[in-house]
Amino acid sequence: MTTIDKSGYTSSRKREHLEICCEKPVESGFSGFEDIRLVHNALPECDMNNIDRGAEFLGYELSSPLFIAAMTGGHSDTAEVNAVLAEAAEHFNIGMGVGSQRAALENPELEDSFTIVRERAPGAFLCGNLGAVQLAEKGPEWADRAVEMIDAEALCIHLNPLQEAIQPEGDHNSGGCLEAIRDLCLSSKYPVIVKETGCGISGETAKMLCDAGVSAIDTGGLGGTSWAAVEALRADSDLLARMGDDFNDWGIPTAVSLMEVADCGVPVIATGGLKSGIDIAKSVALGASLGGMALKLLKPAMKSREALFEEIELINRELTVAMYLTGSGNLAELSKVGAYITGKTAQMKNRMEMNKIWK
Amino acid sequence: MTTIDKSGYTSSRKREHLEICCEKPVESGFSGFEDIRLVHNALPECDMNNIDRGAEFLGYELSSPLFIAAMTGGHSDTAEVNAVLAEAAEHFNIGMGVGSQRAALENPELEDSFTIVRERAPGAFLCGNLGAVQLAEKGPEWADRAVEMIDAEALCIHLNPLQEAIQPEGDHNSGGCLEAIRDLCLSSKYPVIVKETGCGISGETAKMLCDAGVSAIDTGGLGGTSWAAVEALRADSDLLARMGDDFNDWGIPTAVSLMEVADCGVPVIATGGLKSGIDIAKSVALGASLGGMALKLLKPAMKSREALFEEIELINRELTVAMYLTGSGNLAELSKVGAYITGKTAQMKNRMEMNKIWK
Amino acid sequence: MTTIDKSGYTSSRKREHLEICCEKPVESGFSGFEDIRLVHNALPECDMNNIDRGAEFLGYELSSPLFIAAMTGGHSDTAEVNAVLAEAAEHFNIGMGVGSQRAALENPELEDSFTIVRERAPGAFLCGNLGAVQLAEKGPEWADRAVEMIDAEALCIHLNPLQEAIQPEGDHNSGGCLEAIRDLCLSSKYPVIVKETGCGISGETAKMLCDAGVSAIDTGGLGGTSWAAVEALRADSDLLARMGDDFNDWGIPTAVSLMEVADCGVPVIATGGLKSGIDIAKSVALGASLGGMALKLLKPAMKSREALFEEIELINRELTVAMYLTGSGNLAELSKVGAYITGKTAQMKNRMEMNKIWK
Amino acid sequence: MTTIDKSGYTSSRKREHLEICCEKPVESGFSGFEDIRLVHNALPECDMNNIDRGAEFLGYELSSPLFIAAMTGGHSDTAEVNAVLAEAAEHFNIGMGVGSQRAALENPELEDSFTIVRERAPGAFLCGNLGAVQLAEKGPEWADRAVEMIDAEALCIHLNPLQEAIQPEGDHNSGGCLEAIRDLCLSSKYPVIVKETGCGISGETAKMLCDAGVSAIDTGGLGGTSWAAVEALRADSDLLARMGDDFNDWGIPTAVSLMEVADCGVPVIATGGLKSGIDIAKSVALGASLGGMALKLLKPAMKSREALFEEIELINRELTVAMYLTGSGNLAELSKVGAYITGKTAQMKNRMEMNKIWK
Ligand SMILES: Cc1cc2nc3c(=O)[nH]c(=O)nc-3n(C[C@H](O)[C@H](O)[C@H](O)COP(=O)(O)O)c2cc1C
Ligand SMILES: Cc1cc2nc3c(=O)[nH]c(=O)nc-3n(C[C@H](O)[C@H](O)[C@H](O)COP(=O)(O)O)c2cc1C
Ligand SMILES: Cc1cc2nc3c(=O)[nH]c(=O)nc-3n(C[C@H](O)[C@H](O)[C@H](O)COP(=O)(O)O)c2cc1C
Ligand SMILES: Cc1cc2nc3c(=O)[nH]c(=O)nc-3n(C[C@H](O)[C@H](O)[C@H](O)COP(=O)(O)O)c2cc1C
Repeated sequence: MTTIDKSGYTSSRKREHLEICCEKPVESGFSGFEDIRLVHNALPECDMNNIDRGAEFLGYELSSPLFIAAMTGGHSDTAEVNAVLAEAAEHFNIGMGVGSQRAALENPELEDSFTIVRERAPGAFLCGNLGAVQLAEKGPEWADRAVEMIDAEALCIHLNPLQEAIQPEGDHNSGGCLEAIRDLCLSSKYPVIVKETGCGISGETAKMLCDAGVSAIDTGGLGGTSWAAVEALRADSDLLARMGDDFNDWGIPTAVSLMEVADCGVPVIATGGLKSGIDIAKSVALGASLGGMALKLLKPAMKSREALFEEIELINRELTVAMYLTGSGNLAELSKVGAYITGKTAQMKNRMEMNKIWK
Repeated sequence: MTTIDKSGYTSSRKREHLEICCEKPVESGFSGFEDIRLVHNALPECDMNNIDRGAEFLGYELSSPLFIAAMTGGHSDTAEVNAVLAEAAEHFNIGMGVGSQRAALENPELEDSFTIVRERAPGAFLCGNLGAVQLAEKGPEWADRAVEMIDAEALCIHLNPLQEAIQPEGDHNSGGCLEAIRDLCLSSKYPVIVKETGCGISGETAKMLCDAGVSAIDTGGLGGTSWAAVEALRADSDLLARMGDDFNDWGIPTAVSLMEVADCGVPVIATGGLKSGIDIAKSVALGASLGGMALKLLKPAMKSREALFEEIELINRELTVAMYLTGSGNLAELSKVGAYITGKTAQMKNRMEMNKIWK
Repeated sequence: MTTIDKSGYTSSRKREHLEICCEKPVESGFSGFEDIRLVHNALPECDMNNIDRGAEFLGYELSSPLFIAAMTGGHSDTAEVNAVLAEAAEHFNIGMGVGSQRAALENPELEDSFTIVRERAPGAFLCGNLGAVQLAEKGPEWADRAVEMIDAEALCIHLNPLQEAIQPEGDHNSGGCLEAIRDLCLSSKYPVIVKETGCGISGETAKMLCDAGVSAIDTGGLGGTSWAAVEALRADSDLLARMGDDFNDWGIPTAVSLMEVADCGVPVIATGGLKSGIDIAKSVALGASLGGMALKLLKPAMKSREALFEEIELINRELTVAMYLTGSGNLAELSKVGAYITGKTAQMKNRMEMNKIWK
Repeated sequence: MTTIDKSGYTSSRKREHLEICCEKPVESGFSGFEDIRLVHNALPECDMNNIDRGAEFLGYELSSPLFIAAMTGGHSDTAEVNAVLAEAAEHFNIGMGVGSQRAALENPELEDSFTIVRERAPGAFLCGNLGAVQLAEKGPEWADRAVEMIDAEALCIHLNPLQEAIQPEGDHNSGGCLEAIRDLCLSSKYPVIVKETGCGISGETAKMLCDAGVSAIDTGGLGGTSWAAVEALRADSDLLARMGDDFNDWGIPTAVSLMEVADCGVPVIATGGLKSGIDIAKSVALGASLGGMALKLLKPAMKSREALFEEIELINRELTVAMYLTGSGNLAELSKVGAYITGKTAQMKNRMEMNKIWK
């Protein structure tokens, strides 16, 4: 089973899923960060050792804009990975999202692989996770239960139409999702974040989400893990394999999505193909509050706690260096740093400028 | 013999022709679709299973904008392929064009390979096919006979000046063709579609055709089957081979042609290098009513009925997914979806914008 | 010896020079024609067999805009190649330039390799050839003698500063050349054409030449035979080899040069990297009166008369096809055909537009 | 040890450092010169043999704009290289910068490797070298001592935040540097040049430096020696290696930096990835007074005096040829020559134009 969110995983499968992502070429498309270059400041008026990476997000204070994007949970053998990720979230005081909680909502025996996250990260900013389609089906109560399950600070509602669509047995109806999100935003006591999972959010969609009352948006753009690529790799039929191949470049590159979404009125997480602390810096300079990573953190997390901690230290350090080299003492300053935008990304930026949907 | 439309084919030749197209690298140039990216809608307000792919074309209701572009007929051993294609047209309720009927008009014994199409597709939208040069030579009567032969819903008049021109024995005179098309449009009771066969239709040519009264235009643009490439492959002289090589990149990429032609006032079929259902979706978003495919369907059709049906199912499904992922419940909505236009295609788009020939 | 124009060649050397050009990779840079695409006319209102390739140039009627660019002469063993080229000029009624006549002007014994050109092409449009530096040194009398030597219709004054400059023993002073050209234009009874030899003519230089009274300009632009490459290949010192390598991309691509020069007020020959009859068509569409080729014709000319004739037939035919496919019954019509300009060439075009030197 | 400026080098290390730069792939990024093409002047109204390469810089007359960028000194076994470089500076009457003098300021026994420079170049324009961070720490007195040590005509203050930042033990605080530079400019009797070392100077930084009173700016841009690449090569930890890899493309390409800095009000040296005399010509045409080279001169200097002299002769010669081919009798004329700007560099140029920070 390769859907992000399907109940009834057997043990081996949930784990296998993680393994495919770690071992096979599941990344595709381009994120647009290749076309972004921050303006170097040769004379940064600050002390790198005092740079404040601290990020404010939805009222919470995080020590870094690095966000551990939603990945796993739902079966006992994914608990281990979730535990390691949670320990990192706690240790580094960074935000973390769990994978879709649907399985555990349907089958409470599977909750352990989620509850362990709060156990290991008692003080961290944690986000629950539920598909928009499930939300529309089951109503706000499921959302509340997902939040309660891990005592989450916020809930991520994921949009995943590509993967669902290319699977014959996927959820093919997202009608009513926007309405369900609007309802949830009205009723919920916790902030609601809406995220894509690899195809990005357009300016138009962001506007609708903001109007619906979401607290934040996660771009989940093209350029990193591609669910179409995963499907193609796992396909048991030729038809599914070709469908996956044909769609693995579908979507809005993360940097483009970010530029479209940045001014929509709510904080934005840039996720999708971020490769280094430099990409997080670029994200903040283009308007993001946080920069999320999934695959890049999954690989070391599957190895060991140490490997993951080292990776995060490197990413944080690179971010600090990039902040220093742009003369940014904190994220607010980084968000004002100039950037060179070239290539296709510059051309794609034009679409929104010509439409000027925010004005 | 490699012309699209030459009488006197021997059995082996007509068939051989199809085989070359299936086995050799006959595609060349670029279609421009590589430079087009539809704006992903992460929150499609529709149910994919209820998406209506239905296309209205010249007053006929088709179940999908996929159009089987003109390919073959004219000898008994092509009847088999035509039969399979026709069965698909009937089964999927999609439009289909037959190959040039010239041979059968000249030699009624060859009609079988065309009439089988109507036999197998009694309810389908079928287009007859005649070269503009033959039309100019023989007058509207031949056009009427072509339509009658297969009881066609419409007639495609093909323009094929590149292939004719590079062949020493080709038709080298298309003078009077426009006049002949105008006359036909005035007198005929069936709609007349004018199509290119791989070099595209410019905005200027489209305007002339519309003024002449055509009912629809088929871009037949660069980026797919290249008749110059076919000629180069089959050439028995060095000179012809080099001519083919030098001209195999000649023409207007399909996406560019489509953007030039889209506003001309009549419905447009985008053909030339479409590779998937996604390309059909892009075509519709750029203004096409239908998206035609020749080579991509010929290959499975040469294998088996099953292979062709599977291919069409895949294409239809990809189109549906692309519609879903752009939040388009039907083609009218798809036609309003935004697109990112990058690379050379964006640069080429400027020509028409600077000329603004429609305003 | 590798200069275009040096007296004292020994027999083997002049010939060797031609051989290097035929056998080694002497082409470099890009001509810009890759970035030009003519607008296909699917419905050409003309008969290809009646297309008139006829070019008017400086009052002479030529049968094709193909021009045999200046190449050789100056030693008995180059006479053969010149003879073959001349026979082609005569046979096809196209223009031809001889190589630099300096050697023969200094040493009349060498005249045979030039006079044979007129012998074999009694009715052709022939251009004498002299370096601007020699003109400045020796005065208009040498120019007159060069013209008389082959009873030329016009005289090409070549500009060759790159090759001269990178050779330690080259002519390093082109001061006074413009003045000398002005004087010649005033006094001469024959038209004076100024040509580059691989680095192109800028809009600014063209303006100065027009003001000086030249009758025509030959772009001799980047993208074909590179004298810096030739020098690098023949260099006996490392220093000269590196100099050649570093400069072999120097200059203005032919298509860019042509666009800069096209409006300067005198007819223009586009030379430098033209590869086919299509490139000649592109040249005319961009404003050239003729399209010159050196290397592309040298190779077959070194083989045989037949090979050269075939090559020219192919080029002429390709031009005719390109004219047909743009609906151009003659060169005047071709010169009004639209083109797509993409890539770096489109960017380079901006320089002149921003400067608007002609307005 | 790989920092540019760290005291306590052991003999082998300083030398080893030079060797790595000569033997390993330490260059990275792109300089932007690839995207710049000078407008060829086919009719240069000058005598190449009389071209005046003479550059005026800060009141000194140099025979060429080629500048030997700061490289070495600080240990006895680097004295040899410095001696050879100095002899070239003297012989060719070009400017030269020594490497960071910090070590010798801390430990006067190491002065010999610097003082030899003045001994061998008694008449040359020499620049002392000190890090901005050291200046801020030790005050203007150290700057004065550095100048006195080699009786320098000017002092280069280098900015090196990238290399310092990625080294755990580097100087991580450049706060106060601008203030220290301002103080030095006020008090010093010698001109103060501020230079980067591979990441470039932005227009904004240049403006601050000019306001602070610097006499000149050296871009030290991206595209040549990359200290991040050097660090990655020498890294003893994985973390440092990946940091180096991730940052080796960081910075502003030299040509872009030059265009941003050119109008800031003080003379500019273009350094970073210059590969030939043509790049020096491009630099001057884009607004630089001098063009600096480090790596390109280090390699021959490590071989022999002869190798270095030959290299400089070639560079000077190429510059002369480029001046000739743009019709520039001197650098003032070269600075007015037009250029084609293409590719990413053209896109990056927009940033400043949109910001128009000088107006
Ligand atoms: C193994 C794996 C599992 C994922 N599962 C979920 C999920 O359950 N819910 C969700 O919202 N996103 C899920 N995602 C998507 C990520 O949160 C993220 O949006 C996407 O992978 C892009 O980031 P990346 O390029 O850094 O991997 C998953 C990603 C991976 C790699
Ligand atoms: C084997 C073959 C035969 C064709 N014969 C005809 C024809 O007889 N008449 C015609 O109008 N077009 C003909 N075409 C052109 C197609 O209708 C279509 O315009 C062109 O191939 C571009 O589409 P493609 O890239 O999908 O192949 C033929 C194409 C193929 C591949
Ligand atoms: C072998 C050879 C010799 C040439 N000799 C001359 C010459 O003597 N005088 C001249 O004006 N140009 C000379 N040229 C330059 C050509 O006229 C032409 O401008 C240049 O080669 C660019 O055209 P191409 O790319 O088609 O070769 C010569 C070119 C070649 C290949
Ligand atoms: C071996 C080496 C040592 C260097 N040491 C210094 C130094 O001590 N101080 C300094 O300001 N720059 C130093 N630089 C930087 C150069 O001055 C120059 O800015 C940079 O290398 C870019 O030029 P390039 O691409 O021509 O090498 C050094 C460069 C090299 C290659």
